[in-house]
Amino acid sequence: METTLEGWTETEQSIARDAFDRAYSRAIDQLIQRVRASVEGLETAETVWKLHDYLSIERHTIEGRFDFRLQGILFVFASLVKEGLLDLDELSGLEAQKLAKIEAMSRF
Amino acid sequence: METTLEGWTETEQSIARDAFDRAYSRAIDQLIQRVRASVEGLETAETVWKLHDYLSIERHTIEGRFDFRLQGILFVFASLVKEGLLDLDELSGLEAQKLAKIEAMSRF
Repeated sequence: METTLEGWTETEQSIARDAFDRAYSRAIDQLIQRVRASVEGLETAETVWKLHDYLSIERHTIEGRFDFRLQGILFVFASLVKEGLLDLDELSGLEAQKLAKIEAMSRF
Repeated sequence: METTLEGWTETEQSIARDAFDRAYSRAIDQLIQRVRASVEGLETAETVWKLHDYLSIERHTIEGRFDFRLQGILFVFASLVKEGLLDLDELSGLEAQKLAKIEAMSRF
């Protein structure tokens, strides 16, 4: 999925893309760890359906969130920073104004 | 969920209920074993979503199948026998005609 972010230089887009992919990997790794941990507690139908519900929600959230075409890309980065899936340093190279917005929003 | 099967004696209903519950337990145990086994292969988002799809299908199948009110209860028993989730012996006590139908259908 190659997408162009309007108003972003090529370098900025490449930094954003890398940071995005890295955060995505971390989100998936986190999810895998949680699924692995939850599997030990599987005993009844209810616990299996609970795992299914959990996966449904996570899939919906992750697939919705990691949409690089999203208009609110700065907000997405801010939320990833806030949740520890991305470090602000990993976005260095972006225009100062963009970084400032991301940093400010990540504090909410 | 207490349900009355019309045309079945109380003893038959109790036998059916027990067999049903046992087959349900086995189906869930089987599912748990498979989920546990699949968790070892989780590495990418695709493998996690595949597990999610698998659980969606199994949940739909199991919840649809284990409906004691189902009109086609003999057919359900036949399919459980066919898949090894239930032994024909576990239904002994049911009217001979019902057992014969279940046995015959389980061979298809």
